[in-house]
Amino acid sequence: MDYELELKNRAQEANKLLEKFAPTGDVPPLLKEAMEYSLKAGGKRIRPVLLMETVKICKGPLNLAEPLAAALEMIHTYSLIHDDLPAMDNDTLRRGRATNHVVYGEAMAILAGDGLLNCAFQTMTENIPYDDDKYLKAYLKAMNEITCAAGHSGMIAGQVMDMLSEGKQPDKDVLAYIHNHKTGALLTAPIKAGALLCLCDENTYNSLTAYARALGLAFQIADDILDIKGDKGKLGKSTGKDEQSGKLTYPLVYGLGKTYEKIEQLYKEATSSIKNLNIEKEFLINTADFICSRDY
Amino acid sequence: MDYELELKNRAQEANKLLEKFAPTGDVPPLLKEAMEYSLKAGGKRIRPVLLMETVKICKGPLNLAEPLAAALEMIHTYSLIHDDLPAMDNDTLRRGRATNHVVYGEAMAILAGDGLLNCAFQTMTENIPYDDDKYLKAYLKAMNEITCAAGHSGMIAGQVMDMLSEGKQPDKDVLAYIHNHKTGALLTAPIKAGALLCLCDENTYNSLTAYARALGLAFQIADDILDIKGDKGKLGKSTGKDEQSGKLTYPLVYGLGKTYEKIEQLYKEATSSIKNLNIEKEFLINTADFICSRDY
Repeated sequence: MDYELELKNRAQEANKLLEKFAPTGDVPPLLKEAMEYSLKAGGKRIRPVLLMETVKICKGPLNLAEPLAAALEMIHTYSLIHDDLPAMDNDTLRRGRATNHVVYGEAMAILAGDGLLNCAFQTMTENIPYDDDKYLKAYLKAMNEITCAAGHSGMIAGQVMDMLSEGKQPDKDVLAYIHNHKTGALLTAPIKAGALLCLCDENTYNSLTAYARALGLAFQIADDILDIKGDKGKLGKSTGKDEQSGKLTYPLVYGLGKTYEKIEQLYKEATSSIKNLNIEKEFLINTADFICSRDY
Repeated sequence: MDYELELKNRAQEANKLLEKFAPTGDVPPLLKEAMEYSLKAGGKRIRPVLLMETVKICKGPLNLAEPLAAALEMIHTYSLIHDDLPAMDNDTLRRGRATNHVVYGEAMAILAGDGLLNCAFQTMTENIPYDDDKYLKAYLKAMNEITCAAGHSGMIAGQVMDMLSEGKQPDKDVLAYIHNHKTGALLTAPIKAGALLCLCDENTYNSLTAYARALGLAFQIADDILDIKGDKGKLGKSTGKDEQSGKLTYPLVYGLGKTYEKIEQLYKEATSSIKNLNIEKEFLINTADFICSRDY
C-alpha cells in the first residue's frame, strides 16, 4: 500500500484511541471541549503510530499499548497548546485552526493544557494491567519512560533551552541539546516504551532506540526547513516564525546545504540501525524515508 | 507536644522529602531554579503531612509513601504557579514571596508549572516498588488516586468552574462543586492514597475518606474567610482578592454567620467520622481543630 495512505489509516486508528480514552467523569463541559478541540485537531499522530507499530512488529500486547499511545498524543498536544500561548511563541494557527487560546482565552488554554498532561498520566494509571503477570512490570517501565521523556530532563528541558536561546549567538551544542530534548525525547519515547512493553532483548532495544534517535532528530531538522520553505496552507501552521523570533535552528547554524546533508545522513543512520533486526521493518523504513524526504 | 510546633516539625520532614525527590538529571539550571523557587517557598505542607500521617497511623510502608507525598506537594505547587499567572488570578505575592512569573517571567512560570506537574508523576513512576509483592498494587492504586484527584474531574475541574463562576450570580451547587474539586480533591487524596497504600479495610478507608472530605471543605471555607479577614503579612499572600474578582465564596453565598456555623459542623463531621476507628487519632483530630479554628 502507498505509504502516505497507510500513514493516514494509522492516524485514523490513533484517533480512535483518543476517542476511547477521552476525558470522562465529572468534567466541566467547556474544559472537555477545550481539551478535545486541540486533541482532535488532527495531525499525523506520529507518536502513537510509532508506539503501536513497535509493539506490532515486536509481537507485544497491543491492547496494553493503547493507553500509552493515547497518552503520548495527549502530552504532545498539551505541549503545543502551552507553546502557542502569547507568553510563549504567541502562535495563532496550528493544525489548520485557530490556536486554543485564540478560541478559549488564555486562562482556559493553560488549564486545558494542564488537563491534557494530567489526562495522559490518568489514562496510563487507570489502565494499569494489575493482574497481568507477564506484562505488568513492562507496562510500568514503559509508562515511566514516557513520563521522563516529557519532563524536566526531556521535552520541557528542550522547550526551556529553545526559549532561552532565542536571539542568542548560534551554538552547535545548544542546538543539539534543544533538538534532542524538545522534539527528540518524545519521538524516541514511543519506540523505547514499545520495546520495553514487548520485553525486547537488549540488542533489539538498542537498535530500535538508535533508529528512533536518528528519526527524531531528522524530524526536527525537517521541521526547521519547513518553517523556512514550507507552505502555510499545506502545513496548517504559521511559517517563518523561527527567523522572526530569532530561534536557534539547524539551517541557521549550519546553512541549508549542510542541513540537507545531515538529513540524508540521519536517514542512513536510522535505517542501518535496524537492518540486522529480525522483525518486519518496512513501515519503519518507509517512515524514515517519508520524514527525511518531506516536501521542501 | 504543642500542635503547631508538631505541624512545623512535620512540614520540615516534608521539606526533606522535597529535597530527596528534587528534579535531577539533565535539567537546565534556570528551569530547576524556577521549579524549586516555588517548591521551596514553604507553606504548611498539609498534603504530604496528611499522607505520611495516614500511613503512619495505619502502620503502612512509610518509605513507599515518601514519593507519593512529595508528588502531592509538587502538584499543589504547580497549581499555585499557574493559578497566579496574569491570565489567571494575576497574583504577585504567594507564601510571602513574589510569585513565580514575577521573578522568572510568564513563559518560564508556565514551563516551571508544567515541569512540576510532570515531576510529580516522574517521582511516582521512578519509585515504583517493582519487586514488593505485598505493596506493589497498593502503591499503584495510590498513585492513580493522586493522579485522578489532580485532573480534569478533580482539581483542574474545580479551577475551571471557579474561573467561570467569577462575577456570576451566587449558586450553592456551583459553590459546592468548586470547593469539593478545587481544594477538596487534593486534600482528600493524601488520606485516600495513604489508606490504599496501607491496604486498609473498607470501613477504615471509608471513615478516613469521610474525615478527609470534611477537612478539605473546612480548609477551603476557612481560606475564603481568611481572604476577607486575614492578615496579608501573616498569610504571605494577597487578601481581598476574592471580592475584587467576584469569586464565588462561602461567605458570599451564605453570609459570614452561616459560614462559621458550617465550619463548626464540618469539625464535628470530621472528628466523628473517625471516632470508632482503632487507630492513633490525636494528630488528625488536632489537625481538624487547627483548620477549623484558624485565626480569623
